[in-house]
Amino acid sequence: MVTILDVARLAGVSKATVSRALNGKVFVREEVKARIMQAIEETGYKPNQLARNLANNKTNSVGLVITNGLYNGPFFSSMIYHAATNSEMHGRQLVLADGKHSAQEERDAIDLLLSLRCEAIMIYPKYLTVEELDEIIEQSETPIVVINRELVRHRSQCVFVDHQQSCAAMMAYLLAQGHTRIAFVAGSEGSPTGESRLAGYHNALRNAGIEPDPQLLVRGTWSTDSGYEAGRELLARDVPFTCVLAGNDDMAIGVAKACHEAGLRLPQDVSLAGFDDSVIGKYYNPSLTTIHVPMDEMIRHAVGIVLTPEDNASCSHQGELVRRESVRTLL
Amino acid sequence: MVTILDVARLAGVSKATVSRALNGKVFVREEVKARIMQAIEETGYKPNQLARNLANNKTNSVGLVITNGLYNGPFFSSMIYHAATNSEMHGRQLVLADGKHSAQEERDAIDLLLSLRCEAIMIYPKYLTVEELDEIIEQSETPIVVINRELVRHRSQCVFVDHQQSCAAMMAYLLAQGHTRIAFVAGSEGSPTGESRLAGYHNALRNAGIEPDPQLLVRGTWSTDSGYEAGRELLARDVPFTCVLAGNDDMAIGVAKACHEAGLRLPQDVSLAGFDDSVIGKYYNPSLTTIHVPMDEMIRHAVGIVLTPEDNASCSHQGELVRRESVRTLL
Repeated sequence: MVTILDVARLAGVSKATVSRALNGKVFVREEVKARIMQAIEETGYKPNQLARNLANNKTNSVGLVITNGLYNGPFFSSMIYHAATNSEMHGRQLVLADGKHSAQEERDAIDLLLSLRCEAIMIYPKYLTVEELDEIIEQSETPIVVINRELVRHRSQCVFVDHQQSCAAMMAYLLAQGHTRIAFVAGSEGSPTGESRLAGYHNALRNAGIEPDPQLLVRGTWSTDSGYEAGRELLARDVPFTCVLAGNDDMAIGVAKACHEAGLRLPQDVSLAGFDDSVIGKYYNPSLTTIHVPMDEMIRHAVGIVLTPEDNASCSHQGELVRRESVRTLL
Repeated sequence: MVTILDVARLAGVSKATVSRALNGKVFVREEVKARIMQAIEETGYKPNQLARNLANNKTNSVGLVITNGLYNGPFFSSMIYHAATNSEMHGRQLVLADGKHSAQEERDAIDLLLSLRCEAIMIYPKYLTVEELDEIIEQSETPIVVINRELVRHRSQCVFVDHQQSCAAMMAYLLAQGHTRIAFVAGSEGSPTGESRLAGYHNALRNAGIEPDPQLLVRGTWSTDSGYEAGRELLARDVPFTCVLAGNDDMAIGVAKACHEAGLRLPQDVSLAGFDDSVIGKYYNPSLTTIHVPMDEMIRHAVGIVLTPEDNASCSHQGELVRRESVRTLL
């Protein structure tokens, strides 16, 4: 029988630290947590959760609602991973339900998770508006936290990144490298994330005294395929640009393919940047300049809000510029 | 109020076809399904599932167990996507639960989903053995299907790809291009998928009269990071090879980075191939030769097995060679 002591020994920490990491109520450094998770895996240690659940008539689970159109990509797989890992750190099981294709179905998914007796619910909304989300929170007895939206009436029940500010930081960097003809591949129309990044792009240009050229704006739908199509469309317009900023890394990789096919070298002939800091950006050749979205932190925060609300207050997170090889300095 | 007729009109099909696609009992072409899903999204149509559930005292949900260590990557995000989409096609909601770090926790996740009254359960096991899975199926009143394992006693309750045969097909192709010094980046030790691919590699070499060189074998743990480390280790050994076959596409991309850093060009100086046919392989430069794993088909089949068992029989699927730019012909 493996005990918590075996885990502590293997991870080279005290029993109390393992316990703290598992109940999640006190801060434990990421690097130490990773060692503990590794040790749990290697020893096969299992906190006796199910027995506890049965005694409590509780499922000890945390629900997460995301719409299935978003599952298929590295950004959301990373989110689901962090949601599961952080739920586990709090001794809970993550249960994911599908928000499907409408605000009503997102509501249904929340209702399903409530009917499954989840202790708390996280939602990364696609269709529900901020006003509808505020109402849902007001009507629910179960704690609910909203990821990636700023709720006006419930600021302590949401976690988000200021996408417009992140985009401004990226644009400031690109402009400082001497790029003035910067094309933008926007995300899906109506997506608050996409619209914030687009607004950040427009504002940054205007603040630099550059009137945005509509010929330099194309739209994708977040996927690599759509980025490739957007890149082809942009190239077909035959307008000059020295840099492409894509609304996420997946689309940037698609744009890169379109550039290669057109015989353009990155970054010698065209510079490229994205958002999200997905794994592939680090490994792509050339490696991709991007904005790191602190997904792990945000999700840890979201889980904290619903499970240990007393420890959690602020809701806004900052993206961070990651400079790599794909942007060339023109100056 | 949006009706099924609005969806049918927009998709350019009959009401009956929409209905067939939604109840999932009859075959509807992929392309038509995609149009219908698009139309559902655009119109905001919602089959009145929740009302039906409430009447039935059923959750109308299908459970899926995967361990969280696997969530974080394109292969599993694609699997979760297909599982949700295919469940929806059958009028069900996908509920994902985390198998965590041991066979016991995989059992706990199944038990949780059963206690949530899921109608059927799919499991992509990491820790449970084939024998344990056979037992679980025998003891459960709820239909269970196992993904990516061949169950001897319950061949109609599993879907899998013959990884060894897929690897043999890849090796036959590489050998036919004149490669004889082929390095292999194996996946995690003890993973049945990894061991099957490794066996396929060894057998193919021996069948071609080539004794496997242990210096050409390195191990990763499926992630891009681990592929990068394995690539560096291989290069540090300073043994000659003309081609690297990685146990999945993620690791192949990591190997590519290690090669670039060492000043090796792909595919002029070294050829590279992977497995899974992940999105990035198509967009990488050079595009990556790989084995397509028919995930959509397998998951459609798995959902079919548990929800409409009368329509589903065989369990084995075939991987398919996808030839792209990353492998050079030496002859």
